Amino acid sequence: MAILLSTKAGTMADWRDALLEVEPGLDIRLFPDAGDPAAIEAAVCWTQHDMAELRRYPNLKLLVSMGAGVDHLLRPPGPPPGVPVARLVDRRLTTGMTEWVLLNVLRFHRQDPEYRAQQAARIWDELPAPETEGRRIGILGLGELGTASARALLGLGFPVMGWSRRPKSIGGVQGFHGPDGLDAMLARTDILVCLLPLTPDTRGVLNARTLALLPRGAFLVNGARGGHVAQPDLLAALESGQVAGAALDVFEPEPLPQDHPFWGHPKVFLTPHAASITIPRSAAPQVVENIRRVRDGRPLINLVDFAAGY
Amino acid sequence: MAILLSTKAGTMADWRDALLEVEPGLDIRLFPDAGDPAAIEAAVCWTQHDMAELRRYPNLKLLVSMGAGVDHLLRPPGPPPGVPVARLVDRRLTTGMTEWVLLNVLRFHRQDPEYRAQQAARIWDELPAPETEGRRIGILGLGELGTASARALLGLGFPVMGWSRRPKSIGGVQGFHGPDGLDAMLARTDILVCLLPLTPDTRGVLNARTLALLPRGAFLVNGARGGHVAQPDLLAALESGQVAGAALDVFEPEPLPQDHPFWGHPKVFLTPHAASITIPRSAAPQVVENIRRVRDGRPLINLVDFAAGY
Repeated sequence: MAILLSTKAGTMADWRDALLEVEPGLDIRLFPDAGDPAAIEAAVCWTQHDMAELRRYPNLKLLVSMGAGVDHLLRPPGPPPGVPVARLVDRRLTTGMTEWVLLNVLRFHRQDPEYRAQQAARIWDELPAPETEGRRIGILGLGELGTASARALLGLGFPVMGWSRRPKSIGGVQGFHGPDGLDAMLARTDILVCLLPLTPDTRGVLNARTLALLPRGAFLVNGARGGHVAQPDLLAALESGQVAGAALDVFEPEPLPQDHPFWGHPKVFLTPHAASITIPRSAAPQVVENIRRVRDGRPLINLVDFAAGY
Repeated sequence: MAILLSTKAGTMADWRDALLEVEPGLDIRLFPDAGDPAAIEAAVCWTQHDMAELRRYPNLKLLVSMGAGVDHLLRPPGPPPGVPVARLVDRRLTTGMTEWVLLNVLRFHRQDPEYRAQQAARIWDELPAPETEGRRIGILGLGELGTASARALLGLGFPVMGWSRRPKSIGGVQGFHGPDGLDAMLARTDILVCLLPLTPDTRGVLNARTLALLPRGAFLVNGARGGHVAQPDLLAALESGQVAGAALDVFEPEPLPQDHPFWGHPKVFLTPHAASITIPRSAAPQVVENIRRVRDGRPLINLVDFAAGY
């Protein structure tokens, strides 16, 4: 069986080397040099890949996302019928996102933007400090990433709430679920952290209506997908002061267009989809494990639930 | 017995109210309105207070610092002979410092200054990301504050080392002590966190010689005292690139003079001695406890070891 890799040219070789390190014998093809389409039985892809193109491989038995998110594989036309899709569940992906979330929650909690401005103006002035116990964190999505961020923030003494599609219980986290739960949590959230999967249900979940439910002056930290945010609505909320600041790692489209107002916005702190970076060497073992399971006809791991959309 | 409070005018009333909340009957005087000097048996002071002045109170039996640091009470002429000195040990002080340390360690670890510069230049470019497991944190001082920061950083997966005057063992933290231990730790520290007490032994501990021991491009996070750093040496190390960035909350003198180069330095991230703010309501119970112990002739808590200087 042959494995097709498709991602940025720069990363493609790293992925090949990482996979070969786990199983030297693997027959790996780097897109677009797929060779005989009938030989390709597994494809490991990132967002650049054209899904329709995958229908050219009649014997495809496994599709793997190079990240935790799989929305890029599921959006129309979606994967070829009957082909299972696996995502990455990687400790390093989780560590990276937790660090990025903590950095940005603490940036806003500790009034860092105000202190940067004071430094620029040579102002020595201690600002009134909101107490940690009073800074309510609301996390959208309690999967691998949301749960890890919730635990880290609890460890620092923040009161943490979490919203998920289905009821979930995480020690110390006040749980909310469903549409009513979403509105209820937003109404008492001082710093909102979005780590949801992007599905038809969650697309645009952060919009004029939901942002208006936040207490005035709340902050947004989005490490999930640009599609979760109605970007014009967020800009309006930042202008009005309803949202006091936003840390954004994801956008729609990416890269963020040169003329987009986020770039120059004083209340926006953006990173170029770099919050959590897949390290091929760290992710390769689970990918090879799934390739072996395909070969041996054993059940696959980290499979996507098509019904749920993630 | 009467208690004398001495700090910034704004905070003085908060302290009085907080102490009275714990024990309504207390006879509290706000400096300079001390009334009969002979009535003053306890003084609760912050850095503004003139120590020589305390010799006017013949019956002084307790001197309390309004912070974790006591260097402002011990420096010449020091407290009146025979008067015990207590410091604050306050969970909230510790929480505040841990947050400030995490914010600044993550700022440097996650290349936030570079990403802010990229945003200003509208550059969408994912930077190579150093792995957490490879980012060696060295903490100077393993007291209440240093130990709490060490534990929080360990929890995020950083390799953590700690240096203390005497050997100390903290689970998961590689320990160093003494002059040789200091040099050995600095030589393998990527991000240096200073949380030492300021004593004659630690004054100027961060100077041209010790900063040169760090791997080139290391970062400094100082939440302790300005006196720990030879400020001109740090500026030279920042200029040469030996130190890639510094987060500083403390200076000598404070406030930092308007014309000091730190204000406008692109590699310096400063806060106005605001990393960890004493909240009177949170600190009052332990102060009243010590006042009661003086009254009842019982042994005091959180006492300073004059020999050690903290």
